[in-house]
Amino acid sequence: MSEQASVAAVVEAGMLRRFVGDLFVAAGLPEEGAMQVAACLVRANLRGVDTHGVFRVPTYLKRIRQGLNNRHPNIVVSQVAHAASQVDGDNGMGAVVGTRAMAEAIRLACETGTGVVAIKHSNHYGMAAYYVLQALEAGLIGMAFTNASPASPPWGGRKPFFGTSPLAFAVPAGEQPPFVLDMAMSVLARGNVYVAAQRGEMIPPGLALDSSGRPTTDPRALIDGGTMLPFGGVKGAGLSMLMDILGGVFSGASFGGEVGNPHATFDRPQNVGHLFICLRPDLYMPLDTFKARMDELIVRMKAQPRAEGFDEILVPGEREARRERERRASGIPLTADVFDKLNQEAGASGIAPIEARRAA
Amino acid sequence: MSEQASVAAVVEAGMLRRFVGDLFVAAGLPEEGAMQVAACLVRANLRGVDTHGVFRVPTYLKRIRQGLNNRHPNIVVSQVAHAASQVDGDNGMGAVVGTRAMAEAIRLACETGTGVVAIKHSNHYGMAAYYVLQALEAGLIGMAFTNASPASPPWGGRKPFFGTSPLAFAVPAGEQPPFVLDMAMSVLARGNVYVAAQRGEMIPPGLALDSSGRPTTDPRALIDGGTMLPFGGVKGAGLSMLMDILGGVFSGASFGGEVGNPHATFDRPQNVGHLFICLRPDLYMPLDTFKARMDELIVRMKAQPRAEGFDEILVPGEREARRERERRASGIPLTADVFDKLNQEAGASGIAPIEARRAA
Repeated sequence: MSEQASVAAVVEAGMLRRFVGDLFVAAGLPEEGAMQVAACLVRANLRGVDTHGVFRVPTYLKRIRQGLNNRHPNIVVSQVAHAASQVDGDNGMGAVVGTRAMAEAIRLACETGTGVVAIKHSNHYGMAAYYVLQALEAGLIGMAFTNASPASPPWGGRKPFFGTSPLAFAVPAGEQPPFVLDMAMSVLARGNVYVAAQRGEMIPPGLALDSSGRPTTDPRALIDGGTMLPFGGVKGAGLSMLMDILGGVFSGASFGGEVGNPHATFDRPQNVGHLFICLRPDLYMPLDTFKARMDELIVRMKAQPRAEGFDEILVPGEREARRERERRASGIPLTADVFDKLNQEAGASGIAPIEARRAA
Repeated sequence: MSEQASVAAVVEAGMLRRFVGDLFVAAGLPEEGAMQVAACLVRANLRGVDTHGVFRVPTYLKRIRQGLNNRHPNIVVSQVAHAASQVDGDNGMGAVVGTRAMAEAIRLACETGTGVVAIKHSNHYGMAAYYVLQALEAGLIGMAFTNASPASPPWGGRKPFFGTSPLAFAVPAGEQPPFVLDMAMSVLARGNVYVAAQRGEMIPPGLALDSSGRPTTDPRALIDGGTMLPFGGVKGAGLSMLMDILGGVFSGASFGGEVGNPHATFDRPQNVGHLFICLRPDLYMPLDTFKARMDELIVRMKAQPRAEGFDEILVPGEREARRERERRASGIPLTADVFDKLNQEAGASGIAPIEARRAA
């Protein structure tokens, strides 16, 4: 609603991808890498995950210009076992490194049935669903673990230490929508906390501590030196630690509070780490049988009696897939803020603004 | 506290294991299988997870006697890919099937670096941590996914459909305690709901629906045709579906509401399914380096400033490991209810009661 009110333009996805790609080329990325980053960001917008969409372009450009990302990374892929490879991202853009690494996990899974790929020296890689969708589109089950810069404390702590670290899984179905789960470890979006503070509203209990480590529902106490808590209490905190172990410790990336914040750490590379696992869905039965079983699960689930306030039961990722179909057809709405910033970047880079392209 | 008050006996772990093993032998399990089930249950008691300990013996015995479990299963292990095997548990006891399947995942990981094993025709397999501890004790990273009988609705539903399905991970460290996360998808224990109802107390918000699908904090509304919700709202619901996909759909086991309840479904086998993944921790770096990095993560985490009400920051599984050391030294406390039921079973089976053994 407030989102709709502030829409400044609706842009066709392919044109937005080309425009954003041109911005990254202007900043010095090679064409292929520029378009990989653009594709990742625009896919997030297509799916309605605007927090991970082209909104990120100015920060990404700033990091590239300051030399914090390697424009021409020498990404080294080393197969270390029958069904496992390592990827050293050489501080390339997260989407470039992630796309290359998932391609390797897909190769391993197609050739051997299973693929495990750990990635070090990566960066903020956008919407985690992007990578498991890559596996899904190759006909595979995909899993993506990652770590991230400090955002929430360990269980019993009061300062940010583990990341919001999205956890993502994708599983193909047949006629029914595929299962695409992409869940951050956090519940609160920082933007919503500021809005609540401005309005004098409270935030739900169990989601934040104040600066002295006491539970709070006051958004100002959270902003003023407090911390967000992970979802699901002690369980979410345990999963947050798992993300740092599998994404960071295991892969060889930074961990334990040392991953750089993409928006705040401008003195060094982030050194984010990820772990991808791909499985062939027909490892244990013919593919048609697997797909029929997925369809059966989903059909049964959707036929369940509904809770108050729900018109239908959705598969994780189904809402985003619907949004993607809509936005592929009718375009991606951009808020005035994002639209203006993108055109400012275009002006500074000497490339045609998206507005002009839209009119063309 | 109330737990302590009702302790009828404190029993040495080895003796309890032998006693429980004898009960299963008397019910017709072969010695090896009987001791595997006993080891799984007693390990849960050792770790303080008494809900998954010898408390389960009467139900397990009832199912065996009614022919719902195969006493002499022909467990078939088939390697289907370089680093993947399938296990058909032939309706053996869950602990017997699970132990065999994790041994296969360990073999694959030791030989190839990674191991993926899907299991069908299994049963209630007790504490999920038991299997990832098996991986841990072989020096590996272990993951265990499983499905379970219906306990909570899909997101937007109001009737139980997905299981509480514990998700478990274990990662070795060096000098520091290993990471052992074992988390059910549910928050409420059914026993605590009955206690709250008796006392006229409320349960926390966000954890239950009444029979018409409205959120409730009244335990009586939950008991009277309502349903528990998974932890973490929509995220926990998504993970619950993932458990049914990886444990059930992928493996070839039952899924989508059809897994039998071990305590309530006595007309057919459960056909539970699991998925185990093992990874060598030295896939991407020398083992010493990996362990030093895990130690570093844990040391940093434990040094974090603490939230109100916390004396220390613990690694997931650390509390249970401490409990295990204590109980290995000083014995396992059994409540009067459990103690009496075990001795009733012994009497019915014509074997010496645990009381007598304790005195011996």
